[in-house]
Amino acid sequence: MKSNGGCPVNVKFLIEGEEEIGSPNLVPFIAKHRAKLACDAVVISDTAMFARGLPSICYGLRGLAYLEVHVQGTTRDLHSGTFGGSVVNPANALVEMLAALKDAKGRVTVPGFYDRVRRLRPAERRAFAALPHSDIRYKRSLGAPALQGEGGYSTLERVWARPTLDINGLWGGFSGEGAKISMRLVPDQKHRDIARRVSAHLKKIAPKSVRVTVRELHGGDAWITSTDHDAMQAAGRALRRAFGKKPVFVREGGSIPIVADFDRYLKVPAVLMGLGLNDDNLHAPNEKMELDNFYRGIEASAYLMEELGNGEHRGRGGGGKRR
Amino acid sequence: MKSNGGCPVNVKFLIEGEEEIGSPNLVPFIAKHRAKLACDAVVISDTAMFARGLPSICYGLRGLAYLEVHVQGTTRDLHSGTFGGSVVNPANALVEMLAALKDAKGRVTVPGFYDRVRRLRPAERRAFAALPHSDIRYKRSLGAPALQGEGGYSTLERVWARPTLDINGLWGGFSGEGAKISMRLVPDQKHRDIARRVSAHLKKIAPKSVRVTVRELHGGDAWITSTDHDAMQAAGRALRRAFGKKPVFVREGGSIPIVADFDRYLKVPAVLMGLGLNDDNLHAPNEKMELDNFYRGIEASAYLMEELGNGEHRGRGGGGKRR
Repeated sequence: MKSNGGCPVNVKFLIEGEEEIGSPNLVPFIAKHRAKLACDAVVISDTAMFARGLPSICYGLRGLAYLEVHVQGTTRDLHSGTFGGSVVNPANALVEMLAALKDAKGRVTVPGFYDRVRRLRPAERRAFAALPHSDIRYKRSLGAPALQGEGGYSTLERVWARPTLDINGLWGGFSGEGAKISMRLVPDQKHRDIARRVSAHLKKIAPKSVRVTVRELHGGDAWITSTDHDAMQAAGRALRRAFGKKPVFVREGGSIPIVADFDRYLKVPAVLMGLGLNDDNLHAPNEKMELDNFYRGIEASAYLMEELGNGEHRGRGGGGKRR
Repeated sequence: MKSNGGCPVNVKFLIEGEEEIGSPNLVPFIAKHRAKLACDAVVISDTAMFARGLPSICYGLRGLAYLEVHVQGTTRDLHSGTFGGSVVNPANALVEMLAALKDAKGRVTVPGFYDRVRRLRPAERRAFAALPHSDIRYKRSLGAPALQGEGGYSTLERVWARPTLDINGLWGGFSGEGAKISMRLVPDQKHRDIARRVSAHLKKIAPKSVRVTVRELHGGDAWITSTDHDAMQAAGRALRRAFGKKPVFVREGGSIPIVADFDRYLKVPAVLMGLGLNDDNLHAPNEKMELDNFYRGIEASAYLMEELGNGEHRGRGGGGKRR
């Protein structure tokens, strides 16, 4: 204004701060104030220069469709050991569904997704190709192990003229960055062997364009025992006396890693005399224990000592019968 | 003790509270105190009764291998618009890798995963089948839309005697429950049409055992304009004067949804005279703007007004030349 003695055009400023939440008020505002906003051109400075020192005018923008997806399996949180394998894990279902949205060639599999995609004109492809772009420099500037995108298109074509489908965020289950994967194991799988195999496989199937790190959180081997040793039979009699009913022998999908270690170090049988119920909401909100099981459990524990005391156990290291 | 005049056996209590973090101290403890812990049997109450009123003794537990997986693409956070489609999205890569760990029959695909799985003996299968289990009641008690598991095995076999692979937690990108998916669109895709198609497709490919909800977050159509209208040419001259270099015409993978709306409501050309650089870390930590671009941008904006004022624009609603 100093140089020219005034501004050569009228200027209207339109400022809003809601773009990242989808600008819910901006369109209604311009629709309403159309007359007041009337002008000869709109100027926006919100794009990038193609390179340092190379001024750039942008003549095309991609659009956006943005969705949030929730997947629910059962109506309550379930223990991955006790129930894992019998019902779907919503996190597994979610990754399968999301993975199925793209094929091996990087194309979106949603029917009709490409129906209205305007094809690049040869002139525009030539103009893109004439720009001072280098895939090697681009890759290096982003710190990407490799570039990856839809087959048959250059990098600039991929980011400027082809549609994409991206996961912008993902959250489910135990919260903590990364994905937590557990494998429940059965006899005679070895947890270190399985952890090593899964880890190697993940690294093998990963695309070249990512770095994968796998951390082993913890593990334990499966355990199984014979139902006819003395302590087991004593527990059976004790439970029968407390509950008035012959007990059943069951297995459990969950893990108590120390049981295998007791076996290894103490070389004695373990008796798993459980008093929980499957609807106790184990490890989930509103966990409970039934009072009836609590009181009968106390009785059963006392009977178990009596049964063990009457039995044939030989005292060892202070254990066994007192008589 | 009152009834019998004493406890019929000696009892040693072993109590620990670290099971959920993998019991790092328990095994070293029992290894070290083996002599002191010597006993005839170990009794643990940490399992479930098969049903209310039905006492149960557990003789088998599954083991556990627990991993945490991290996938990294580029070395810095990237904007899904500006870069989406040219490099891999680590969240997409992660779901593809995790989904690939199981096949359509619910079997784990990791080589060697089943090598050491002990087969169920016919007698044990019969014992499982004789227990008072009902899939319908089980399904109802969990609020599961459907049961789902490895083909060829009953529910009890799946949870007691077959290994599993479960995602226990998942976290990546923008944090907020559920998965955030965005599609960047190009002319002539319509964002509502695409959102509807993706949403319908997700519901179609979801397993019957889950409920899927999709929420449309926001959207906008792509925009493309001719590079030869007056305002565009004026911007070209202004940038050339400020930067001393002929500007290039570029497109942009990101979205500025309002540009299409300006077109619709104000019916005037838009000029996207951007001053950012691709290494500005747009929307990411340590975002910056180059001072050189800031000062030349101020100059270019002044030149743009001059160029527009010198141009052929006819005043409309207070816009246009002042002279």
